[in-house]
Amino acid sequence: MELDHKKYMNEACKLAELSVTRGTGPFGCVVVQKSTGEIFGKGHNMVTMRNDPSLHAEIVAISDACHNLKNFQLTDCVLYTSCEPCPMCLAAIYWSRIDAVYYGNTKTDAAKIGFDDQFIYEEFAKPIEERKIKMTQICSEVANIAFKEWVDKSDKVPY
Amino acid sequence: MELDHKKYMNEACKLAELSVTRGTGPFGCVVVQKSTGEIFGKGHNMVTMRNDPSLHAEIVAISDACHNLKNFQLTDCVLYTSCEPCPMCLAAIYWSRIDAVYYGNTKTDAAKIGFDDQFIYEEFAKPIEERKIKMTQICSEVANIAFKEWVDKSDKVPY
Repeated sequence: MELDHKKYMNEACKLAELSVTRGTGPFGCVVVQKSTGEIFGKGHNMVTMRNDPSLHAEIVAISDACHNLKNFQLTDCVLYTSCEPCPMCLAAIYWSRIDAVYYGNTKTDAAKIGFDDQFIYEEFAKPIEERKIKMTQICSEVANIAFKEWVDKSDKVPY
Repeated sequence: MELDHKKYMNEACKLAELSVTRGTGPFGCVVVQKSTGEIFGKGHNMVTMRNDPSLHAEIVAISDACHNLKNFQLTDCVLYTSCEPCPMCLAAIYWSRIDAVYYGNTKTDAAKIGFDDQFIYEEFAKPIEERKIKMTQICSEVANIAFKEWVDKSDKVPY
């Protein structure tokens, strides 16, 4: 069906405003099923409210939609977010197989009010050994055990 | 204090093996407080188990550590993960302010058994208009309201 993009973006923006009222970051998001036009996922930023840096609006809305649709993939869904997703949320969007994203504010707008994710994109583009957070490989032989067990497992859910 | 990296990596790998037993992805992770050597966060992949594409081992362990430490930042912590983090988890690691990362398997090892995140890094490097998931800006004036309200708010928790 034809989706009324403005209507859903208004819902995402209302959640962003609610989030401001709750003092926890001006970001809101909804996930809409394309075939029905129904909102299955809603979320706003909860990082400081719940002490969890992963709880950006998009992650909360994706989790909510997956819970409600009882599916870890959202191939028939579109995401509306009040602000262009950060790299964490963008990767989550790819993992969720969401079909399209509509956003209101840009990441440049977000950077201007103190939410700057550009450094993460810059870190991603660097070789591991040049990144600010030191990353070191150890114990590969121990880590490989679970991988072997996974390959040999017959009753797994592949994804 | 001096951390016994092998000990903590073994814990992460045990969680990965437990995750295989539960049929839900061969990945485990622990978050350790540097000053005490105590494990504050534990997690394994729960994507198919909980129908949530964001529940990678690192996200679960970071959420757990933040919950236990009652803090949305983990500046005094180190993360041990059985496999090199995907872009979603790596971004979450940056947001969490974790100090260092130790990993067992590489992303190349993961790709070989069907968990390939290279396409996400490739998407990130593209301009928005060339990405597989279509991203469109709409309703910027509505989205800007929450940003303005956030700037004007006096009792917010900045982060």
